[in-house]
Amino acid sequence: MILTVTLNAALDLTYRVERLELGSAVRVQEVRSQAGGKGVNVARVLSREGLAVAATGLVGGERGARIRREVAALGIEDRMVTMAGESRQTITVVPTVGQVTELDEPGPAVTAGEWCRLEDGFAAMASDATVVVLAGSLPPGVPDDAYARLAGLAQRVGAAVILDASGAALDRGLVAGPDVVSPNRAELELAVGRSLSADGRLPQALPEVVAGLENLRRRGAAAAVASLGPEGIVALTPDGCWRVHHPRVSGNPVGAGDALVAALAQGMAEALPWPERLARGAALAVASVLAPRAGCYDPDEVVRMRALTEVRPLPDIGAKAC
Amino acid sequence: MILTVTLNAALDLTYRVERLELGSAVRVQEVRSQAGGKGVNVARVLSREGLAVAATGLVGGERGARIRREVAALGIEDRMVTMAGESRQTITVVPTVGQVTELDEPGPAVTAGEWCRLEDGFAAMASDATVVVLAGSLPPGVPDDAYARLAGLAQRVGAAVILDASGAALDRGLVAGPDVVSPNRAELELAVGRSLSADGRLPQALPEVVAGLENLRRRGAAAAVASLGPEGIVALTPDGCWRVHHPRVSGNPVGAGDALVAALAQGMAEALPWPERLARGAALAVASVLAPRAGCYDPDEVVRMRALTEVRPLPDIGAKAC
Repeated sequence: MILTVTLNAALDLTYRVERLELGSAVRVQEVRSQAGGKGVNVARVLSREGLAVAATGLVGGERGARIRREVAALGIEDRMVTMAGESRQTITVVPTVGQVTELDEPGPAVTAGEWCRLEDGFAAMASDATVVVLAGSLPPGVPDDAYARLAGLAQRVGAAVILDASGAALDRGLVAGPDVVSPNRAELELAVGRSLSADGRLPQALPEVVAGLENLRRRGAAAAVASLGPEGIVALTPDGCWRVHHPRVSGNPVGAGDALVAALAQGMAEALPWPERLARGAALAVASVLAPRAGCYDPDEVVRMRALTEVRPLPDIGAKAC
Repeated sequence: MILTVTLNAALDLTYRVERLELGSAVRVQEVRSQAGGKGVNVARVLSREGLAVAATGLVGGERGARIRREVAALGIEDRMVTMAGESRQTITVVPTVGQVTELDEPGPAVTAGEWCRLEDGFAAMASDATVVVLAGSLPPGVPDDAYARLAGLAQRVGAAVILDASGAALDRGLVAGPDVVSPNRAELELAVGRSLSADGRLPQALPEVVAGLENLRRRGAAAAVASLGPEGIVALTPDGCWRVHHPRVSGNPVGAGDALVAALAQGMAEALPWPERLARGAALAVASVLAPRAGCYDPDEVVRMRALTEVRPLPDIGAKAC
């Protein structure tokens, strides 16, 4: 079983608008809602892939109840812990013409007692899991080293750990030595403290990407996988280093990173070779971009994208770890 | 008693952000929520002013329950009708630097049965009222002539009617002959089918504003009051025509129009002379702009702004009705 952890679960709303103009009153044409937060999104993909998956985290209020109902309806085992505060919402504004803008609420303040309740029950939950996925932001009130603590508990009961976080949550989480971290470009830049040159385009920015991933490995991660959107994926692992080339597509990028993490978790649970994990992850991510709703990709598209994806060993440019 | 009607009641959320940048993921720093919809906002002001006020309209779901709880806590008599759909929310994004942007959900579809239930009970509610305020947008499923129908029922039981709406809801509502309509600049432009010249600045745009108000009176309104933000107020009434000069202030303009409508309702309920209604309305509106939260103005500020407000008879520029 794979266990995903979503400490800051959310109800994700998508607003379709004609145009989003700053300083005006915008009429929303259509509202859609879906349970979210990175861990929930990863669990949704894993469940669609037919894997046994459980979701834990903190939820509360009416939104929390809706998140739980949706999790259960997706066939995900509900191990959520209830808190007093109302779960947050996020708003993704999708205009007919123009760029997608996201508004992310911080989430309610978690009390010390609520956090303890989750931490106290965590080892028992993790002992049923082969892989634990720790994903997303930390709500106010949860300690910065929350992911390090949960990773430690998971490792003690023999579960592998994938950490998908940014900022302090990632920095502190690395200390526990997770099996995989999976930064996107912004998280990679934040982790290494500078912007990628050439606007992040490969192969120009490849040496910096590799240096960033090496930095994350030095700080504790066994493997580090960068998801760079249309530029593909770069992975430094104990088994080798690879660059993944996949088709460039346009669509909704929200959820593509979560699809990649799901594939990495599945690959780890099934002990697949790394190139196969990466190829499958790329195919799932690209199919997710093509899907109208995050996480609701077409399985035929995954097969098609898998055939068009190539995983090549990384040339030895400054990648001492490979 | 004054009765306000809010067919598309909402939970109004205010998001404080550092900057709202299109195409990015924006972290919300603070979330505040308040029961809203124009009629609820008008009722809030009237209740603060110590008047007996009741609120009806359509509410549903968890958000509807929160709206009702807040209405009751404000000392407003709750005459809301429950519907199956969840009441909508609106999001006002207030950046530290930059303009305020609003996202308005359309609201849930109202069933024919729900609308009938409100309409059937409306005459009895209105018979307790001296003034009925019909304010805001119509949710999907409610007929375009909803305001004309409710105004007709109110008039039959002897209540005066104030209509604050735009587009088709205003056009169809005018047919019933409301006592007052209160367009803002955008509603005035929509009603007359063209933009105001000189960017709406007075006195340059005054002839057009007067022509627009005359148009609304010809189509059925006994009095028409334009609230033009920093430019002040222009009113054409059966008792005379006035322009209101008030201090220009900067702040949050959301709710200022509702404060003016509240003063017009109070003035009508207490049969105050029109210049007094307008002066008080301007003072309330300006105090509301100065307040950090819509509707939560400082009463001392109202007194101060009232002293700085002047109501002058309108010079006879094309205003045949005066």
